[in-house]
Amino acid sequence: MKKLPKIKIPGFRFASLHCGIKDDAQKKDLALIYSEEPQTLVDGVFTLNKVFAAPVALCRENLKLGRGRLIVINSGIANACTGKQGMKIAQATQKKAAELFQLHPKEVYVSSTGKIGDQLPLPKLLKGIENAQPQLSSDNFLDVAKGIMTTDQYPKYATVKGKLGSKIYHIAVVAKGAGMLCPNMATMLAYVVTDLKFEKAALKKIFRNAVDQTLNRVTVDGDTSTNDTVLILANGLAGNKPFKANSPAAKQIEKQMTELLEKMARMIALDGEGATKCCDVFVSGAKSEADAKKVAYAIGNSPLVKTALFGCDPNWGRIVAAVGYSGAKVNQDKIKVKIGSTKVFDNGQGMKFKPSTVATYMKKKHIQISVDLGLGKGGFHVYMSDLTYDYVHLNAEYHT
Amino acid sequence: MKKLPKIKIPGFRFASLHCGIKDDAQKKDLALIYSEEPQTLVDGVFTLNKVFAAPVALCRENLKLGRGRLIVINSGIANACTGKQGMKIAQATQKKAAELFQLHPKEVYVSSTGKIGDQLPLPKLLKGIENAQPQLSSDNFLDVAKGIMTTDQYPKYATVKGKLGSKIYHIAVVAKGAGMLCPNMATMLAYVVTDLKFEKAALKKIFRNAVDQTLNRVTVDGDTSTNDTVLILANGLAGNKPFKANSPAAKQIEKQMTELLEKMARMIALDGEGATKCCDVFVSGAKSEADAKKVAYAIGNSPLVKTALFGCDPNWGRIVAAVGYSGAKVNQDKIKVKIGSTKVFDNGQGMKFKPSTVATYMKKKHIQISVDLGLGKGGFHVYMSDLTYDYVHLNAEYHT
Repeated sequence: MKKLPKIKIPGFRFASLHCGIKDDAQKKDLALIYSEEPQTLVDGVFTLNKVFAAPVALCRENLKLGRGRLIVINSGIANACTGKQGMKIAQATQKKAAELFQLHPKEVYVSSTGKIGDQLPLPKLLKGIENAQPQLSSDNFLDVAKGIMTTDQYPKYATVKGKLGSKIYHIAVVAKGAGMLCPNMATMLAYVVTDLKFEKAALKKIFRNAVDQTLNRVTVDGDTSTNDTVLILANGLAGNKPFKANSPAAKQIEKQMTELLEKMARMIALDGEGATKCCDVFVSGAKSEADAKKVAYAIGNSPLVKTALFGCDPNWGRIVAAVGYSGAKVNQDKIKVKIGSTKVFDNGQGMKFKPSTVATYMKKKHIQISVDLGLGKGGFHVYMSDLTYDYVHLNAEYHT
Repeated sequence: MKKLPKIKIPGFRFASLHCGIKDDAQKKDLALIYSEEPQTLVDGVFTLNKVFAAPVALCRENLKLGRGRLIVINSGIANACTGKQGMKIAQATQKKAAELFQLHPKEVYVSSTGKIGDQLPLPKLLKGIENAQPQLSSDNFLDVAKGIMTTDQYPKYATVKGKLGSKIYHIAVVAKGAGMLCPNMATMLAYVVTDLKFEKAALKKIFRNAVDQTLNRVTVDGDTSTNDTVLILANGLAGNKPFKANSPAAKQIEKQMTELLEKMARMIALDGEGATKCCDVFVSGAKSEADAKKVAYAIGNSPLVKTALFGCDPNWGRIVAAVGYSGAKVNQDKIKVKIGSTKVFDNGQGMKFKPSTVATYMKKKHIQISVDLGLGKGGFHVYMSDLTYDYVHLNAEYHT
């Protein structure tokens, strides 16, 4: 792996190491994100799956406090479907870390990713946190990206700097994608750190809007993980003037944060299980946004569309059929479909186009499908990956 | 292909031939089902996809008349997404067949299956119907099963005899499955013929219940075709006494018809695109039947569960996760999951079991997954197939 650039975010320190959850001692399986600033704000967005991992339940509880100082992330075991014992382990991890760092337990966030059903080796995990503490450094941000990888092909991160008045601020994000997890579940984890000074309401609004527009719209296979977690820590050290949720400053920040998380969303789709490409599905002209969302996910989750993407086959019939069964209000004579810039379907029938030209376009790593329902103003956008032999290989060949 | 048995249903005649829609002259692409009896009752169930083929629109119109005498089925081209020209071709087919057989046009049902977007070669089709008419024979029932095949691996049919009072009756069904269609769409077609005498209301109730319990619950990949059609013709020649919809006779018939269509459902799932097995998903203990249905389809459509089935991997984590994101009311501590007779999940965590024993069970062609939500009395059942390399091959490698 090539050497990663050094990225510093004032007031944050990071560490990552192998503590023994993964068998391979060369692979990191524990990461810490620590904020030195006592008044660091936190917010989080979690999986909507009603079967959720113990650490997700703990994180949700924590949010009530509103402050967050430490994130402890392990990879290798998801601590999901682990019953009361799993919850005890998550709580013990939180308690031990709080003692070591002299924090309120609710200032400690625990995340896990990996195999479902196994119990975490608590002594190894606690020893790992102890060993990681003295290694914390402002230089180690990108080590976190490595420490949370499971079958990700590469670490995922992005950063941006900006100015509010005379104050320079930083936003950085690390993520792990929907790569197969040993091999029970695809989980998305993402952590945003920033030195911006936020009012609590503005933080919540900007962060959740940005997540909703990006990370919440990735579909690799339609299966929602038990462990999905996105957290943000904001320490305020940039010293910018507080701003309201609808101010120009807020718009600037939301735009930047959305762009950062969009990069993560694309990386995650492209590095999805066996995926060879990321396709943007744009739906417009729906009766409502809810209808547009149904259509976008029907296309994004369709195995027939996904295999056609893999095969670079401009198979508009599968796209139109998915529109039809999406549950949205649809008139088949008003649907327009484009693959890239080529119109392939209009007036209830296929258009004349050169399949080889569109097939060549579809060989790109990033492509677009646009569907206009011609009924209203509702729109939605999702990021989908394709369905490949490697997806079947990753998910069928490994035995529990 | 081995020689098929001769099956006769009094009053029905059949024919099947190659008329030139498919390139390969060895492959049949046209089939006729004809009822000699003027007062033959008909009912039909069609795709719920809002993008539906021209012949489906015509069939729906026909049902208003209530009588049906002739079904004209072509394979090779689906006549879906073909605009006004496609509808003209379907209407011309209906009109020509009505003239040849001296029927009311609404007594003629047209079905198509195959590639989406192409126009049918009308002259070939009409000539084919003309050539097929003199070949109609009571011996040719199973030729219809061959004539409607696309990438099905084998013809699908089942028959049953019964007695009401002293009268013997027959019910027979032919179907084609969700095999890849050249390769735009998976379509299910099924045709039931019987000499039973029905009251119209009883026919409708029994037929629709039977379809709803069976053919409507097959999920190969969650993609709903534009052409799905199930039709029944009942000519009354058995001469049984008419019976009411809730009589013991009705129950006997509904049970038999459901069993017949269940055979078709299993054959279709097992012969799905690249499938190696058919898995029954039984959900019980849901708050409502609607909730149970959500859970059954979440499992049945999950690519992660499907690949685990293919890999014979007793991966209960994926099943439990699908339960969690199904949208049904769920308490993760009350879910029980069995694979075959082995309990694999209970009390919020995995059970101790021998993975190799369950993996051996999962190598069978027909297996079962049972999920009890522990919340109420709602139940549902679907038939799912697995997701294999061949699915990706069939759907990605062929180019339009």
